[in-house]
Amino acid sequence: MKRYLTTIPREKALSDILNHIQPIDDEEYVPVYECKNRVLTKPVYARYSNPPFICAAMDGYAINSEKTSLADLSNPLSFKKNTEVFSVNTGDPLPDGSDAVIPFEEIEDDVTSIVIRKPVYLWQNVRMVGEDVIEGDMLLPTNHTIKSFDIGMLLSSGVTHVYVRRKPRLLIIPTGKELIDIYETPESSKEQKGLIDFNSYVLLQLAEDRGFDAKKNKIVCDKDKLQDIIKASIDTFDVIIINAGASAGKEDFTEDIIRHMGTLVFHGVSMMPGKPVMAGIIKGKPVFGIPGYPVSAVLCFQSFIEPLFDRFSSTVTHRKQVLCTIPFRIPSKIGIEEIIRVNLIEKKGLFYAFPLQRGASVFSSMARADALLSIPEKIEGYDEDEKVSCILLRDREELKNRIHIIGSHDLSLDIIRDTLKTMSPSMDLLSIHTGSLSGLLSIKKGISDVCTTHILDEKEGMYNIPAIKRYLPDIPCILIHIAKRMQGLVVQKDNPKGITGIADLARNDIRFVNRQAGSGTRFLLDSLLKEAKIDTHTVQGYDREESSHTSVAVLVKESVADAGVAIYGVAKLFSLHFIPLMEEDYDILMTKPFTEDPRFTMLMNILQSKDFKERLEALGGYNTKDTGAIRYAHG
Amino acid sequence: MKRYLTTIPREKALSDILNHIQPIDDEEYVPVYECKNRVLTKPVYARYSNPPFICAAMDGYAINSEKTSLADLSNPLSFKKNTEVFSVNTGDPLPDGSDAVIPFEEIEDDVTSIVIRKPVYLWQNVRMVGEDVIEGDMLLPTNHTIKSFDIGMLLSSGVTHVYVRRKPRLLIIPTGKELIDIYETPESSKEQKGLIDFNSYVLLQLAEDRGFDAKKNKIVCDKDKLQDIIKASIDTFDVIIINAGASAGKEDFTEDIIRHMGTLVFHGVSMMPGKPVMAGIIKGKPVFGIPGYPVSAVLCFQSFIEPLFDRFSSTVTHRKQVLCTIPFRIPSKIGIEEIIRVNLIEKKGLFYAFPLQRGASVFSSMARADALLSIPEKIEGYDEDEKVSCILLRDREELKNRIHIIGSHDLSLDIIRDTLKTMSPSMDLLSIHTGSLSGLLSIKKGISDVCTTHILDEKEGMYNIPAIKRYLPDIPCILIHIAKRMQGLVVQKDNPKGITGIADLARNDIRFVNRQAGSGTRFLLDSLLKEAKIDTHTVQGYDREESSHTSVAVLVKESVADAGVAIYGVAKLFSLHFIPLMEEDYDILMTKPFTEDPRFTMLMNILQSKDFKERLEALGGYNTKDTGAIRYAHG
Repeated sequence: MKRYLTTIPREKALSDILNHIQPIDDEEYVPVYECKNRVLTKPVYARYSNPPFICAAMDGYAINSEKTSLADLSNPLSFKKNTEVFSVNTGDPLPDGSDAVIPFEEIEDDVTSIVIRKPVYLWQNVRMVGEDVIEGDMLLPTNHTIKSFDIGMLLSSGVTHVYVRRKPRLLIIPTGKELIDIYETPESSKEQKGLIDFNSYVLLQLAEDRGFDAKKNKIVCDKDKLQDIIKASIDTFDVIIINAGASAGKEDFTEDIIRHMGTLVFHGVSMMPGKPVMAGIIKGKPVFGIPGYPVSAVLCFQSFIEPLFDRFSSTVTHRKQVLCTIPFRIPSKIGIEEIIRVNLIEKKGLFYAFPLQRGASVFSSMARADALLSIPEKIEGYDEDEKVSCILLRDREELKNRIHIIGSHDLSLDIIRDTLKTMSPSMDLLSIHTGSLSGLLSIKKGISDVCTTHILDEKEGMYNIPAIKRYLPDIPCILIHIAKRMQGLVVQKDNPKGITGIADLARNDIRFVNRQAGSGTRFLLDSLLKEAKIDTHTVQGYDREESSHTSVAVLVKESVADAGVAIYGVAKLFSLHFIPLMEEDYDILMTKPFTEDPRFTMLMNILQSKDFKERLEALGGYNTKDTGAIRYAHG
Repeated sequence: MKRYLTTIPREKALSDILNHIQPIDDEEYVPVYECKNRVLTKPVYARYSNPPFICAAMDGYAINSEKTSLADLSNPLSFKKNTEVFSVNTGDPLPDGSDAVIPFEEIEDDVTSIVIRKPVYLWQNVRMVGEDVIEGDMLLPTNHTIKSFDIGMLLSSGVTHVYVRRKPRLLIIPTGKELIDIYETPESSKEQKGLIDFNSYVLLQLAEDRGFDAKKNKIVCDKDKLQDIIKASIDTFDVIIINAGASAGKEDFTEDIIRHMGTLVFHGVSMMPGKPVMAGIIKGKPVFGIPGYPVSAVLCFQSFIEPLFDRFSSTVTHRKQVLCTIPFRIPSKIGIEEIIRVNLIEKKGLFYAFPLQRGASVFSSMARADALLSIPEKIEGYDEDEKVSCILLRDREELKNRIHIIGSHDLSLDIIRDTLKTMSPSMDLLSIHTGSLSGLLSIKKGISDVCTTHILDEKEGMYNIPAIKRYLPDIPCILIHIAKRMQGLVVQKDNPKGITGIADLARNDIRFVNRQAGSGTRFLLDSLLKEAKIDTHTVQGYDREESSHTSVAVLVKESVADAGVAIYGVAKLFSLHFIPLMEEDYDILMTKPFTEDPRFTMLMNILQSKDFKERLEALGGYNTKDTGAIRYAHG
């Protein structure tokens, strides 16, 4: 049962499988208006010239220019309509004998004839045959991918149909007893008995984005059935993805099936996430076993299935890249390539790359990521300020139209984001929750212009202002009040363990869940523990750190912990019992130069809006009396 | 009948019409797997946490960690399967009482029990509830446009359907008596009686690219019928485009219809192409009359209809921009904004912008363009070396994977392009036909690395080498032979005017069509005229310049001219009579540094391939005996 994967580098794995793949040679003859993004299998030549005949370039009268040569102001010449001159509209062919057009504006109309007072030049106001495209011109070469404008060019020159390569056909087979298909599960069942198979829906979207003719099978749980499906599909499809069953567990039978039905090409790639990926060839067709963790699955798709598409179709997938600055050291294990998701913060033309959660199971970070950063096998990570190229997942322009907040987490940030996008759809808000202190420090470092903070100064009993004076004495900035909010102990519903305050955290039977060091909530806890003279070592779970109020609350709700410190809003959201500890100032700090930025005005408009205050109050535990007020400024 | 347009600036026209438009407020409730690129009308919250329960992060046995605390190498502990430990696969919920997973690889299997030799930590190898997404989290805000990865995040947290904004509905009505619908015209009719309506197909593609629910009407020729169609559609559609009938000609009745049925907002915008565009409001809906010239039509679409989409949908169209260098002065009329199509040549990280044909009727240049360059109303053009921002029509990456040739036109360039894209689908060839001399000068200027040339030195009776020595004495370069090709006089089929040679060009009854100054063919003609002692003033049409062999040939074929100088290949293509004048060397010149570039090897492989030579010979008039040979090198 034990299997150790021998991993090979990603490039090697890719080239090993590509060696078995040929471009698809079936072609389809399709109408031009349906051929967008299809790939030509032969060059296309213009069937007609455009325009196909000499035609009027303006609305007017077609005329023989030679006959006008003597016209001038003192010698007006008259021409009979329909015999000597002919009324034409733009685009009409020139009648025989005509070689120029005189526009309506330049003649005198005399009912049955026209009068002109200056000569018309040969070919004046006419479009020549082939001015745009000439019959027989090669319009587009083999392997060209057709775009919207190409469609116009083809039709304009009489090309109605083209030969394009058949789309590669991809079958995605989800496997796993733990999976449920959310569209086949009754909506009414409140409790979820399995894990939702969303991988195969995402893979299907990615495959369609790239141009595959992709299908998704139902979830398969059984080895024999999987084998039957592969047998029945392998002639129809160009590539099959089995997801998952790629690991070395007892139900990971993909390798066995590939070996049984064909040849295994590789199993194990030194990349993370994605290490257990495998590929083989069955009846000449590539079959992939890709890992079940969703981030692994999509990274394997991008690493192996997209290049396969390019080989099948004779195309190339362009990956948009951008050079980023590493804001603080990003460590990585030597011996394996690590692909991490990052958010990009633009500041003065530089992009700073902030790593998101690395776990292969955290798919939301894939949706939230702006770019992917590869840390090669042979290095131990990137150093602070290093410049590294990232693969963009969004448009550069999207990154620029964004407000970036680094700092403390609060539910109000979601409301700010939603209000912002409602008021200015072209904008977005990115908030990175690294805690209050880290927010202040990123302003100090010049990476960020905006941070959220709630740091209690024990001595002065005041929030934020002392910390700003201490950490940012030389940085001109302004502190705006978001709200007062109630922090407290969140404990299970009905408080089964009878917790009444901070002192109970030292109890033997209480499992605590903490916030990360540098967060305002952690400062608060540490200050309260100190005041109560409780040694942190006696608090069980003091070392278990979570990075948001909601993640603390959910662990309490699920009885993983008995208590944590969080805001009232999340206790209410999860119906937890709440023991108030302290009302604090949750504020937003901005640099002075940022107040000149239109984004500052947008933020202030939101904070001062009635709608924002109402939504915040509705969450519970917020006091918005001074929301939007300036609390402090210096510099 | 005379109408003079009062034009207003583009921004003013746009804001005038946008003032009448509100975001669409109808929403649709759609399954998540069908919501890609749709726009949310409300924020979406996670319905379940993901994972929804504590689950195994590896395949192994679920266990109660506390019971393992004493296990070590000298104290192996044994646990009964199915009562004390439970076999789980990745993703399975943890059975009650278990709080960790020990992987299969780390146990000894004893049939009915397992043996472990080290303690298991609390929560080891398990995924916490909500590790990815927490129930109640705001996943996406209002007005967010859904992407593939969002679909995974939504499904993973139990969101199966979302509220999205209804797509704006667009109706395109082609109008004009001169138009034919190519799909409704019998293929057999060799001769084309009208102009193909390709505008409405292109507009349809652009509308779908942007996200409209777009429909195309049949061609309408009659004012009453057009009015009926608008009346019948105005309640269903959000916007109607009438193409064309925007000008001031006698059949340009769009303005009358808008005035009759509603209110005209503007007619005439100071932009070129696109000046006669108009817009009005009928029953609260915007109705556009856009000009018939195809380039005008698409530029009006981009200028007015795309921003309208954004307003309807609360989205934003991101335009990719790039900073370009102007390689030589680009003049423009003051008082009107001019939008020109450009090709971009990348050289050492700089993009040089080369204008394509400016005519509003030349749609192929829209398909060939890499970017659009706006020359504002208030300036007279751009100076050499000025840096200007362009709107990209292609991916930056696509521009980099390209071989750029500036210089002389020849049919072999199409064959090189087709062969290149067949051999290396990721590559492309861009050739800009400005003539031999301009090719040499762009190498001299450092803009280009490759040019094609055929310049005869009269004194030495030799092609290209003397010119290279004269113009590029200091530039290390290498000259490769493409082919010998036959130049001659092309005259109408069966030579109706009995032309026998250069001397006939001075005849009164012969209309000549010339090539542009600086082209090798022009050098050849001038040298032959001089030799024959013919004054160029006596050659009728000497001043009529075309920029390619094919455009000369098509004008002769269409009897616009009686004779021109061109290569045999085009005479054969158009079945013209051909009078040989001179066999010349058509060569390709490359800089020495370029020979280190992989693209050099690609070019050489093509030139030396049997296939290339065969295809060239098949055109007629080419001698490929020395194709691919080095003719000369210096530096």
